[in-house]
Amino acid sequence: LVSVLSSAVIVYRLPWTWKCSKLLMKFIHAGLNTIAMILAIVSMVAVFEYHNSKNIPNMYSLHSWIGLTALIFYSLQLFLGFAVFLLPFAPVPLRAALMPIHAYSGLTIFATVIATALMGITEKLIFSLKKPQYNASPPEATFVNCLGLLLVIFGALILWMASRPHWKRPPEENAKVLRPIGGTPEGTEAESTMTDSSNADKSDLRITSEAARKQNLKLDEAGQRSTM
Amino acid sequence: LVSVLSSAVIVYRLPWTWKCSKLLMKFIHAGLNTIAMILAIVSMVAVFEYHNSKNIPNMYSLHSWIGLTALIFYSLQLFLGFAVFLLPFAPVPLRAALMPIHAYSGLTIFATVIATALMGITEKLIFSLKKPQYNASPPEATFVNCLGLLLVIFGALILWMASRPHWKRPPEENAKVLRPIGGTPEGTEAESTMTDSSNADKSDLRITSEAARKQNLKLDEAGQRSTM
Repeated sequence: LVSVLSSAVIVYRLPWTWKCSKLLMKFIHAGLNTIAMILAIVSMVAVFEYHNSKNIPNMYSLHSWIGLTALIFYSLQLFLGFAVFLLPFAPVPLRAALMPIHAYSGLTIFATVIATALMGITEKLIFSLKKPQYNASPPEATFVNCLGLLLVIFGALILWMASRPHWKRPPEENAKVLRPIGGTPEGTEAESTMTDSSNADKSDLRITSEAARKQNLKLDEAGQRSTM
Repeated sequence: LVSVLSSAVIVYRLPWTWKCSKLLMKFIHAGLNTIAMILAIVSMVAVFEYHNSKNIPNMYSLHSWIGLTALIFYSLQLFLGFAVFLLPFAPVPLRAALMPIHAYSGLTIFATVIATALMGITEKLIFSLKKPQYNASPPEATFVNCLGLLLVIFGALILWMASRPHWKRPPEENAKVLRPIGGTPEGTEAESTMTDSSNADKSDLRITSEAARKQNLKLDEAGQRSTM
């Protein structure tokens, strides 16, 4: 679940997807998120069935509360993302206004899922390790603790990749350079499912910006080198 | 600890601090982080003393591992922040290169601290509630679960405030508008502890940019309205 979710989070930052059309990229993003949603629902059903078969109460722990909250927000996110960004009906200003919220809530849900997993791991270690107990640090406990630590490092890396402005795919960065005053400060939905028909204004902008874009790419490379 | 830490995180986004000089703002940021660090060390000592007095092993749980990792990175962050951004020795390009890393690791440490607190709450509820147990959902369990959920909401709000580009204090946004191609894409350390002496280039830039800045501020207000 976490790996599919994180692939969905960073798909716009992977150089090989920059060659895809924006629409294909969106389909990959939406598809991966749909797979993650299916996995989340399957795991929820599995948990409830496991609890019922063992006579363990459902939804009593903080882990379950936060997990369910994350799932509810995730389904809202998926529904709104589909309705606004994938279907060709939402007007561009609405897309531009919702994009920062969509990106922020996606990353926040991702971080919340990691936190939920960490709480789940803690619960499982406490409840499952009996002889010797968790606090005696048996090898299983050390091993699973390491997995939990790796999960935090993995989550931190994904958030790093997703939040680097110079890892954005070039066309959006381009739009940003072109419209520093007149455009919205982030997440401009210049190319979208709606703008497949050619638009004279935009193609003009694109031609005049070729030099700026190249300069910008160079700068990005430099930035990447200096921050790594 | 979390409240002091979050105040330190968002101090640059609070309009009342925009009236302060950048140096005073930095001192508030550094001071709050120092207080948070002292609180973190005090609480670590308290935990070890409590464990030792009750014959509970130290550092066996995932909560403790991630908490200690966060504390180590936090002390590194504090030390580097002090050396690079507060002392007047680091050159401006180094500050500009390190600022995105400083901001990212600050926010990541903040999120990790929230996750650690959630794991700690889970452990405490499991170990402390005996008759009735945690899974019987006594009122204490529901109350503390609500606190945990509020902690997540609080953390999400702080991350929202800290990541909004139009909540940055105006002068930096200004610099961003002026240098979309030539400057570093984020966290330009234009005014710093080093540049108190006047700089001809920069003051020219500032004069010519007055109109752009006003336009930009208007845009920010609009952006704020449209995204809230």
